[in-house]
Amino acid sequence: MAYNVASLTRLCEQFESLPGIGKKTAQRLALYVISQPKQKAKDFSDAILNAADSIKRCAVCQNLTDSELCPVCANPTRNKSIICVVCDPRDVIAFERLNEFDGVYHVLHGLISPMDRVGPDDLTIKELLKRLDGSVKEVIMATNPTVEGEATAMYISKLIKPLGIKVSRLAYGIPVGGNLEYADDVTLFRALEGRNEM
Amino acid sequence: MAYNVASLTRLCEQFESLPGIGKKTAQRLALYVISQPKQKAKDFSDAILNAADSIKRCAVCQNLTDSELCPVCANPTRNKSIICVVCDPRDVIAFERLNEFDGVYHVLHGLISPMDRVGPDDLTIKELLKRLDGSVKEVIMATNPTVEGEATAMYISKLIKPLGIKVSRLAYGIPVGGNLEYADDVTLFRALEGRNEM
Repeated sequence: MAYNVASLTRLCEQFESLPGIGKKTAQRLALYVISQPKQKAKDFSDAILNAADSIKRCAVCQNLTDSELCPVCANPTRNKSIICVVCDPRDVIAFERLNEFDGVYHVLHGLISPMDRVGPDDLTIKELLKRLDGSVKEVIMATNPTVEGEATAMYISKLIKPLGIKVSRLAYGIPVGGNLEYADDVTLFRALEGRNEM
Repeated sequence: MAYNVASLTRLCEQFESLPGIGKKTAQRLALYVISQPKQKAKDFSDAILNAADSIKRCAVCQNLTDSELCPVCANPTRNKSIICVVCDPRDVIAFERLNEFDGVYHVLHGLISPMDRVGPDDLTIKELLKRLDGSVKEVIMATNPTVEGEATAMYISKLIKPLGIKVSRLAYGIPVGGNLEYADDVTLFRALEGRNEM
């Protein structure tokens, strides 16, 4: 390509390295950033540096935070006897949006996946077991309903059950607003199996 | 939301301000950037600052560049007597990908659009007219085939034609690999009107 401006190409490559961003989108984003006033580009650049510098894992639940404890663990009104185990910080954001769960979380930062060479030791399972002193009454396994999510939930529940702590799993069923006709067989079967008295 | 980490929220907002990036995608990108090694985040941040600092408009064609002249205008083998007028730097990239056009470009940085309060003076039309000394033989209007693109092409051609310079427009027709059945009426009409002898 005859038109090759080094710093623009470098910025395009950086955007392209992000997940789900292709060549054309990267170009569009890079040109947008450049077309803005310089101060805006500086703010963006600062936000990245600042986040990369200040964000670390919460000492208790391993969620991302910029202080010693994450806002959930630092909140004295949260019920510390129920731990909701999730794969990813995004899952915590989804649960917090509900405003319904008042327990605390534990972020695994991944799922067991032999295909991707991710074993139990690559997750924060050790840190979860350390939290299970006498005060914890229930652990909710809230990993995704995928093969890896199921395997991880099963693996962890086998470690926790012998300690006499209740282990539960999110309910399977038809999504609210969903259409029976379009539900897949496994989901429909699970919904039938898990039916509740009205 | 109980889970609110200031520097993460700030980074999410920055990503969300980009065109075509919604709340969820912004979250995904921000968490990805943080999950990478710190050096990668620093590289990204540097690339933005560097591009914003070094990239300016080419003194001749107004395309984006990091030196006085853009690579096309600085290339002595390009045919300076044909100018291809485009709306956006991305259009230059599209033409350069062809490896077929050996003329030079002029980037308008927008299209005339009274709805968005963009008038002829907001574009680089003055700079285009300054380039039209005796050496320029043809100006190709390569703006998009939209209402704004057509209006802009019409406006500029009316300014240039009196100077005795040939003004041409990209051909309209069915896209290669397209399907006649799905072509819209206007495109099909233009394809029929512009038919060539085989």
